[in-house]
Amino acid sequence: MKHYLSVNDIDSLNHWVKEALKLKQQPIQREIGAGKTLGLLFFNNSLRTRLSTQKAAMNLGMESIVMNFNNEGWALEFEEGVVMDQGKSEHIKEAAQVISQYCDIIAIRAFPTLTDKEKDRAEEVLSGFKKYASVPIVNMESSIGHPLQALADAITIEEYKTKERPKVVLSWAPHPRALPHAVANSFVQMMQKSDVDFVITHPKGYELDPEITKDSKIETDQMNAFQNADFVYVKNWSSFKDYGKVINQDPNWTISNKQMSQTNKAKFMHCLPVRRNVVVADEVLDSDQSIVIHQANNRTYSAQLVLKKILEGLKK
Amino acid sequence: MKHYLSVNDIDSLNHWVKEALKLKQQPIQREIGAGKTLGLLFFNNSLRTRLSTQKAAMNLGMESIVMNFNNEGWALEFEEGVVMDQGKSEHIKEAAQVISQYCDIIAIRAFPTLTDKEKDRAEEVLSGFKKYASVPIVNMESSIGHPLQALADAITIEEYKTKERPKVVLSWAPHPRALPHAVANSFVQMMQKSDVDFVITHPKGYELDPEITKDSKIETDQMNAFQNADFVYVKNWSSFKDYGKVINQDPNWTISNKQMSQTNKAKFMHCLPVRRNVVVADEVLDSDQSIVIHQANNRTYSAQLVLKKILEGLKK
Amino acid sequence: MKHYLSVNDIDSLNHWVKEALKLKQQPIQREIGAGKTLGLLFFNNSLRTRLSTQKAAMNLGMESIVMNFNNEGWALEFEEGVVMDQGKSEHIKEAAQVISQYCDIIAIRAFPTLTDKEKDRAEEVLSGFKKYASVPIVNMESSIGHPLQALADAITIEEYKTKERPKVVLSWAPHPRALPHAVANSFVQMMQKSDVDFVITHPKGYELDPEITKDSKIETDQMNAFQNADFVYVKNWSSFKDYGKVINQDPNWTISNKQMSQTNKAKFMHCLPVRRNVVVADEVLDSDQSIVIHQANNRTYSAQLVLKKILEGLKK
Repeated sequence: MKHYLSVNDIDSLNHWVKEALKLKQQPIQREIGAGKTLGLLFFNNSLRTRLSTQKAAMNLGMESIVMNFNNEGWALEFEEGVVMDQGKSEHIKEAAQVISQYCDIIAIRAFPTLTDKEKDRAEEVLSGFKKYASVPIVNMESSIGHPLQALADAITIEEYKTKERPKVVLSWAPHPRALPHAVANSFVQMMQKSDVDFVITHPKGYELDPEITKDSKIETDQMNAFQNADFVYVKNWSSFKDYGKVINQDPNWTISNKQMSQTNKAKFMHCLPVRRNVVVADEVLDSDQSIVIHQANNRTYSAQLVLKKILEGLKK
Repeated sequence: MKHYLSVNDIDSLNHWVKEALKLKQQPIQREIGAGKTLGLLFFNNSLRTRLSTQKAAMNLGMESIVMNFNNEGWALEFEEGVVMDQGKSEHIKEAAQVISQYCDIIAIRAFPTLTDKEKDRAEEVLSGFKKYASVPIVNMESSIGHPLQALADAITIEEYKTKERPKVVLSWAPHPRALPHAVANSFVQMMQKSDVDFVITHPKGYELDPEITKDSKIETDQMNAFQNADFVYVKNWSSFKDYGKVINQDPNWTISNKQMSQTNKAKFMHCLPVRRNVVVADEVLDSDQSIVIHQANNRTYSAQLVLKKILEGLKK
Repeated sequence: MKHYLSVNDIDSLNHWVKEALKLKQQPIQREIGAGKTLGLLFFNNSLRTRLSTQKAAMNLGMESIVMNFNNEGWALEFEEGVVMDQGKSEHIKEAAQVISQYCDIIAIRAFPTLTDKEKDRAEEVLSGFKKYASVPIVNMESSIGHPLQALADAITIEEYKTKERPKVVLSWAPHPRALPHAVANSFVQMMQKSDVDFVITHPKGYELDPEITKDSKIETDQMNAFQNADFVYVKNWSSFKDYGKVINQDPNWTISNKQMSQTNKAKFMHCLPVRRNVVVADEVLDSDQSIVIHQANNRTYSAQLVLKKILEGLKK
């Protein structure tokens, strides 16, 4: 594998999940990445992603260098042919080529604008680095995808499933701020690759990008969707149609025992950070059915598997 | 030892100081922490504490990950049962449990509000992490204590004392801003555990928390307090009674040769950073009696001893 | 070598460049710096300098600790004898001595004020650290010099020159903001030590400090200066005479094929970040004549050579 930009870079999900679970048993493999450097570039805040990816790098014996572009580096220009006489000091062409010379792998986090749909769908930052960097790129959450999270999610479902083909529900939940679609998008794509009975549920107007959801089942009655679910994956996102807007904060959609009672004692999943009693009630998050902490732990093995596969690719 | 939250976590000060001084002779002990990760979480600025704690981790062979919560992570909620529809993105319950999965030890710096006495005394951040984390916690200065500093202070006094039972004076000094009580509190507690003749001196109204000072001798005449002192430990703090207020900036309390001349050629100590010619005159800080730089150096061995004892505890 | 503060600390440029090119062939020399710590202190933003210096430290087996003074540490006071009752929390005297105890080498980036010429020429921050630190200091760009960049430039010219004594032109180019003189100054000093035919070209009013340029040839007709050049090194700087001011943004000085056509197929150099189509046209920067990416790569070997020489000095 060269890059890990989206869920589509996984050649065989089944093998990947198996390999990640094996690696979780024995994570210290310092010889694989010894002498290699991972550059972690943040254009936005991060807790789990930064810590788990640094941890994964350490487990593989890699050095890591963290760079926060917002307060440590230079504002980057991504447009071609522009006269750079405004606020941007450096063009992605130079930045990506230069950083490639100091790092063996570059991992990038860059959230969407949520105001410019076409720019966000084009993944300006991530695809700028992909285009100009000479080393592999890892997506640590881009404007439209969060494939390290989705891989951790797949690993978690594999660990907790009690039947061959579990029912998995992705449910929208309310949130005071406008949030990106990245986590939901990558989870949808991951479930489409998985042997699960998958349903998406959200209020009308919160349809995700149809090019992502394709023919995945969508149900606008949340209670119906939760019937007999084995896993419920909860996440807020802003409107895609009325791009980046919060068009509904209906508290009936907050996940509580009311919804969970419809399920087959479903496991509750969320990528975190989660707003308690807005997205999900304490009674659910603090119950035995919640596996969010285990899910976050799998971020390390998701990142480690991706880095390992890229490092193996470098040696060829 | 599980956590290092306050001076009270030291079982035998005498042994600890001896062990720290031994370790200072031969600080490189990479096998002790090899493969272990220290997470350093900062909710406030830091220079000595961060550098010395990272250095201590390196000496022990540990990897360290630094996280500045103010500009890199998410704003944390500490209240139970709250509806998180305001500015806080993540609850301490999740944050602490999640970080525990990426780090073997978590070290935390979180200053007081100086406006909400009860919240500060409850040490919201530190005790939140202690409550929910599954790994040991180290206090890198909390709202009411700075026990890594106090341990470095005890090591320094042991190195410089020329008699069995030296006289040690803790003196308040003026400062333009309202400062926390943490350093003074932990130093008082440390001196209460030490074989010293201990006196606290400050203007009226600057009494520290009586639950901390207990029956320690308090003298409001600074010149009297300094008589025959072997060590003077200087620090500003804001009022505890009139909580968090600067009620006096009397320049007569600035430490100069006037006060030092009363002492038994006392060593001058301060935790740094120190405001020259406000807290202490240049003539004192630049004199041979000042040992503030040596004191800061002992921060490394204080942190290293604490990490070492926690790592040894992990192996049991 | 003790410190690396300016180009003048290079004893034999010829030997240094040869050694750097040798080291570039085999950069991994972990035994040289094993167990040593490099402290990187940033008072300003950095991309190349931070990443390449951290990479250099890694290649030498050193640990590195990064500290951003603007948002992680304390505001420093540099004046002697001042009453510190304003915004500055710590004096350079203490900061430098303290950090020296945690780090084996201290590297510092501190840009000029561009408003106070005398303070800038005195290199307040760098010389403050030099004065009070007890360990070697490396200049990662000070108010008046950027000698790590200039060494990388010399290495790059050695690699690309096709004749014994190439013609090298340093050309000013327009820029919307007032920029420091540091890069230009150090490049001038480096060329003065090199066996090259060196010309500086800039519009009237943009003369660099005459104590730096000395008897270097200055030509105010850019097209004339470019005649038969083998290397053109482009950089904006603000006025030195009308200190820190942008007195001219003449777009005729933007480097395009017009100027390049005058040269002997000159290599185009720039320290980066560079503003496209302001400082230099896309047609030049994207041409085969541009070697800015290779130049940035040599930052690693420049920094590594400097650190190596200092580490060797420590062992004596």
